[in-house]
Amino acid sequence: MSDTRSFPRSVTVYEVGPRDGLQNESRIVNTATKISLIEKLAKAGLPTIEIGSFVRPDLIPALADSEEVAIGLKDLMKKMRLVCLVPNLKGLERAISVGVSEVAVFASATESFAQANLNSSIAQSLERFEPVIRRSRSSGIRVRGYISMCFGDPWEGAVNASQVGRVAEALIEFGVDELSLGDTIGVATPKEVIDLLDHLDKIGIKREKLAVHFHDTYGQALANTLLSILEGITTVDASVGGLGGCPFALSATGNLATEDLIWQLHGLGIETGVNLEELVKVSSWLHQATGIPIKSKAAVALMGKKANQ
Amino acid sequence: MSDTRSFPRSVTVYEVGPRDGLQNESRIVNTATKISLIEKLAKAGLPTIEIGSFVRPDLIPALADSEEVAIGLKDLMKKMRLVCLVPNLKGLERAISVGVSEVAVFASATESFAQANLNSSIAQSLERFEPVIRRSRSSGIRVRGYISMCFGDPWEGAVNASQVGRVAEALIEFGVDELSLGDTIGVATPKEVIDLLDHLDKIGIKREKLAVHFHDTYGQALANTLLSILEGITTVDASVGGLGGCPFALSATGNLATEDLIWQLHGLGIETGVNLEELVKVSSWLHQATGIPIKSKAAVALMGKKANQ
Repeated sequence: MSDTRSFPRSVTVYEVGPRDGLQNESRIVNTATKISLIEKLAKAGLPTIEIGSFVRPDLIPALADSEEVAIGLKDLMKKMRLVCLVPNLKGLERAISVGVSEVAVFASATESFAQANLNSSIAQSLERFEPVIRRSRSSGIRVRGYISMCFGDPWEGAVNASQVGRVAEALIEFGVDELSLGDTIGVATPKEVIDLLDHLDKIGIKREKLAVHFHDTYGQALANTLLSILEGITTVDASVGGLGGCPFALSATGNLATEDLIWQLHGLGIETGVNLEELVKVSSWLHQATGIPIKSKAAVALMGKKANQ
Repeated sequence: MSDTRSFPRSVTVYEVGPRDGLQNESRIVNTATKISLIEKLAKAGLPTIEIGSFVRPDLIPALADSEEVAIGLKDLMKKMRLVCLVPNLKGLERAISVGVSEVAVFASATESFAQANLNSSIAQSLERFEPVIRRSRSSGIRVRGYISMCFGDPWEGAVNASQVGRVAEALIEFGVDELSLGDTIGVATPKEVIDLLDHLDKIGIKREKLAVHFHDTYGQALANTLLSILEGITTVDASVGGLGGCPFALSATGNLATEDLIWQLHGLGIETGVNLEELVKVSSWLHQATGIPIKSKAAVALMGKKANQ
């Protein structure tokens, strides 16, 4: 696990662009474009795509149409893993009613961010998630648990691994299939990543249950992802074209760009199922369709190379 | 050497902004600003700074004033490592005449780039470098050898480790103190880095003699640097504010940003001697003075954080 040459044969890329990405862009993207984006991402080979959020529509205007998006993707949903965020039982019911077969809940490692983002304490939010997770499991629906602010918080500063551990333990106990560890403000370095993975291991939460979710605010996302993969993580969150940001983090920039990740993984001989050339076409198309700038360096470089050929 | 937790106690950051950075920016920076930049970088704790290039002034207009820059830094030069690029014996003599005590030569791993950048074959360029390196050594001047295009070349594609090895062997035989392995077009991933380090080790060139120099064209620079450090490299090239690019590489963006590197190294508890807060002030000052955009994500994030305090 801790060798600089022990790369896995394959990595599952969990695409968060249509949800985490678009939620945090200033431009609102219309429903038809969102559906096309997700279909194109699927065609480019992304195995898992988060497509929306069943929160109250007025709370996140950018994702107010998640129900229509899910309905528009009914056929695709039967063939692959399309995931929706659900904040509570009501959201889960809405998701189930339109055929969603995989959901995610979004917890926080810190009280400050729980208050700011979930409008409740950590304990209250976990109380709300418990029946969501249990109901999902009993309905045969896969559940992912996000934990945000795992490595630092704009109000509280450094975050202890044990703090993350307590939330992780609760979510695992409720029955989540996978936990995604989020560096929401992008401050982590490999040391904090190793410390957290070690702590989780110590309390019985193994690498196989974990995904990592790095933001590139301080330019650290791909390096932290590399280290995580070397440490045994095989599910990595990324956002096409680097879509996204974080409204609660000061000057936060976007998620790890999927294209930059794929360039590294394929360079390492790690299989992803993704066709990078097709993926870059998706970024280029989205930019043309919406005006959202492309924040993936690999995508920009590959587009420039093609234009010069 | 090959453990994911074996970080060194300290890393030497080799600052290339004033030379490699400014050489490849479209804006020309005046002599006084260059001198101030280097003085400020020294004050922020950078232990080694490349300050200019003694090539024919008409060949690289952005660095045509390197002689005046060196003269303006006469006092600082006695106290710390300030390095100048020299293309030939004549350049070395000019450098020595103004008190330069450390120089660098710039070789290529590929014939195409040697022709494009050095206007000669690899063999001819090495012939030119041999007396430069020998004369430097006999004059007590430290010499660094750059090898560019170590991992890929815009004309030739992938580059073999053995190709790099032949140039490295020649430079080592001539007497260079250090070899900087350059990913001039930013395409490398950790696999190619490991392959090259292993090959050089096999032919007797140890990690202690090596530095790494990554460009961020495909977003890979910091991840490759992390892997190199885990593999035993302790000298890393970086450019303040991510200054730079590469005119010979299609759509190439800048060097690894020094601030992003320092954020990682300090997060890992690795000593650099650099004061990151002061360094960010240098980026901010340079941006104000010249209009050159800041391409370091950590610098932008830290400036945003400060502005919001």
